[in-house]
Amino acid sequence: MLEELIAPDLRAALEEGDIAGVVDFLNDNHPADSALLLQALSAEESLVLLNALDSQLRADLFCELSGSYQADLAELLDSESLAQLASRLSPDDRVDLLKVLPSEQMDEVMTTMAAPEREDARRLASYPEGTAGAMMTSEYIALPASLTVAGAMERIRKEALKKESVYNSYIVDAERRLIGKATLRDLILAEPSSLLSAIMDDQVASVHADEDQEEAVFKLSHYDLLDLPVVDERGIIVGIITHDDAMDAMEDEHTEDMERFMAISGSHDDASYLQTPAWSHFKHRVIWLVILAGFGLVSGAILQGFESTLMNLMILAFYMPMLAGTGGNTGSQSATMVVRALSLKEIGPKDTLPVLWKELRVSLLLGLVLGSMAFLRVFFLSQGAHIPPNISIVSIGMAIALALCLQVMSATVLGAALPLLAARFKADPALVASPALTTVVDITGLLIYFGTAKIMLGV
Amino acid sequence: MLEELIAPDLRAALEEGDIAGVVDFLNDNHPADSALLLQALSAEESLVLLNALDSQLRADLFCELSGSYQADLAELLDSESLAQLASRLSPDDRVDLLKVLPSEQMDEVMTTMAAPEREDARRLASYPEGTAGAMMTSEYIALPASLTVAGAMERIRKEALKKESVYNSYIVDAERRLIGKATLRDLILAEPSSLLSAIMDDQVASVHADEDQEEAVFKLSHYDLLDLPVVDERGIIVGIITHDDAMDAMEDEHTEDMERFMAISGSHDDASYLQTPAWSHFKHRVIWLVILAGFGLVSGAILQGFESTLMNLMILAFYMPMLAGTGGNTGSQSATMVVRALSLKEIGPKDTLPVLWKELRVSLLLGLVLGSMAFLRVFFLSQGAHIPPNISIVSIGMAIALALCLQVMSATVLGAALPLLAARFKADPALVASPALTTVVDITGLLIYFGTAKIMLGV
Repeated sequence: MLEELIAPDLRAALEEGDIAGVVDFLNDNHPADSALLLQALSAEESLVLLNALDSQLRADLFCELSGSYQADLAELLDSESLAQLASRLSPDDRVDLLKVLPSEQMDEVMTTMAAPEREDARRLASYPEGTAGAMMTSEYIALPASLTVAGAMERIRKEALKKESVYNSYIVDAERRLIGKATLRDLILAEPSSLLSAIMDDQVASVHADEDQEEAVFKLSHYDLLDLPVVDERGIIVGIITHDDAMDAMEDEHTEDMERFMAISGSHDDASYLQTPAWSHFKHRVIWLVILAGFGLVSGAILQGFESTLMNLMILAFYMPMLAGTGGNTGSQSATMVVRALSLKEIGPKDTLPVLWKELRVSLLLGLVLGSMAFLRVFFLSQGAHIPPNISIVSIGMAIALALCLQVMSATVLGAALPLLAARFKADPALVASPALTTVVDITGLLIYFGTAKIMLGV
Repeated sequence: MLEELIAPDLRAALEEGDIAGVVDFLNDNHPADSALLLQALSAEESLVLLNALDSQLRADLFCELSGSYQADLAELLDSESLAQLASRLSPDDRVDLLKVLPSEQMDEVMTTMAAPEREDARRLASYPEGTAGAMMTSEYIALPASLTVAGAMERIRKEALKKESVYNSYIVDAERRLIGKATLRDLILAEPSSLLSAIMDDQVASVHADEDQEEAVFKLSHYDLLDLPVVDERGIIVGIITHDDAMDAMEDEHTEDMERFMAISGSHDDASYLQTPAWSHFKHRVIWLVILAGFGLVSGAILQGFESTLMNLMILAFYMPMLAGTGGNTGSQSATMVVRALSLKEIGPKDTLPVLWKELRVSLLLGLVLGSMAFLRVFFLSQGAHIPPNISIVSIGMAIALALCLQVMSATVLGAALPLLAARFKADPALVASPALTTVVDITGLLIYFGTAKIMLGV
């Protein structure tokens, strides 16, 4: 959006060699917007611009770029420039940069860092992707409970020069175990001579470093927090997760959910849609498509088994698309409801029975409506159809309606049951992708359809 | 989750008449958690507990309850108690409560409110649902630029007693037009004698009250803000949107996106999955299912038109499930990618051509892989099939493979094009639901399939 509006001007300015004009533009705009503009340019072009900025703005802009674009830029930089850049980044952004570097370059940059920063980066990088630890930053304020409010304000003023998150101070004991929290609002309202131990809130929500990042995002949102402290197994504070990183993670989780749900596989880097080459898009999509097409061939084989039924009663073939489509749609709907309810923690695997009971009732209503619709279509609009003389159009209509009703009910319940089953086994419920479900209910649908026809019509 | 773990204890305590025990529990827990527990009880049971709490905690807990549960509770309360409760709520929560009341009760509560609060509530309630104005609160700090830092701190200290958001102060001119911003961090680092006009940041992101709430959430997240000021058409500040409300809105938008994408209709209140009765679930799902089943019947009618082709070459029927399924899957995948990229603003309607060109290339690769797969299946596994003597198995395989390839390409491009078209006409791209798309490509797929067979095989 923004890219389109401004990138051509920027490009024109670049082509005219008007570096100064572009740099003015970057100086005047928010780094988050400038990053969108730079990403529309080649890494070489961006580098010329970045080098013309002052070093802090360069770092602020750099950390807004996508990981893959950072990697492209890093390839063009020598270790010294990278180390300088890294020193200007906040600890979590620094680790994110180190992670996208080839290991050799990473080691070189690490050796140029001061020992405490190196230790810190090593520690932050040690948490596996997807955990709360991998999301946190080590820039937070930790104060002893024995400090006075005035002393705390003094400390915060000093730390505020280098730290972004100064609104929550975490109160720790002598072993740095998290024992309380004081907001800057609490502090400016309190008597300057009060002790932190007297004014702190000792009910602090926190998350373990090994816990899933989803849990961290949930707590931050559920308790309306600015940041969430991360502790290790001994209760020692090791970092905080800030609200802006949690919001980004929420967007990422949602993209991941939707993509999983649509059977798009692979670990996604953060390159945008248009930047990702067609070949990568292909690779992320093809695996599941081939597997599902394989199942589609199974449906075909089942159909082949009912060849003689179909030959005798061709009218059955005309209702197959509706049967398959409706089964897929009802199953996807119930799966969507359950996946969302699970991710909002409205339900858990223990609610399996009430959920299935609810879906069974919903599906019975849906089955009755859709079955009646199919019956009416068969009854009123099958005048010219080739039907064997020993079978009435009413009985065919009844069989198709019953089969559709059974298909809707089984697909709906299956759509609700599979995500719950996945959750019970600690897998991501969205893995029960809608295409996979559609393909499964295609198969069960054919069996239900021809089974019902065989029993009710004897063909 | 939490409900399950604790609600039975709570219920046992309630049944034993141990109100005091339950109240202790509510006093010790975060209102957000307590709200989950209360919602597992009937409104009558909850009311007994709420009445035993002190009035501020009662209000804090009340505003964490879902809108429909608030409405249930409000029915049990007289106007006087409601007015007392409302007076303890923050302005945005107060308006949310007023909105769920029947209009008569709302008027009664309004008349008991002090004139400024009533005016404020009326103003906040005047913005239509879904706009930035409807999301904002009127509790923010606005300061004149001529104030000194020390004077600002004095004002903030006073206002902090009644306002939650004290970390950003918005600087306004004599007409209350937004001209800058100072964070509390800026203020504690600045010289007490400096003027706000000297230290304020005059590049303030803001949103218009009439703009879509999605735009507000995007800006808050994009610029990593704690809160986002809302202005009217004259640039006068009228409220702020806080980060926690933005996070909640983001979750709601995700739910809405997924449900729309799965053709679940209706305006959703915030009742949780299990609280929503089966009948409501049914109503939200049935409309689209009936429409889509109607289209499924169109597929059947098309199939009926090709009855003789099918009679002559029954083997074609066996590959129909794979063709329909694969078309639906590839279309849903590309639609998902495009819907997400649109909502993350990675692309806009103006990028239609590059997006379609990318999807065309992706779909060609997918079509080649899946077509080859179909050919191999036909060639190697159709030994026993009934085939007319004048048609070779190789030509049947080629026709099915070509049809599948064309189906994959058209479904993929259609899946990408429809959300872009919706966005161009300012409709929600997620409205191009996956089930709708699947149904459409079922129809185009059948036409492609039998068209290809007729041309290549002459049946």
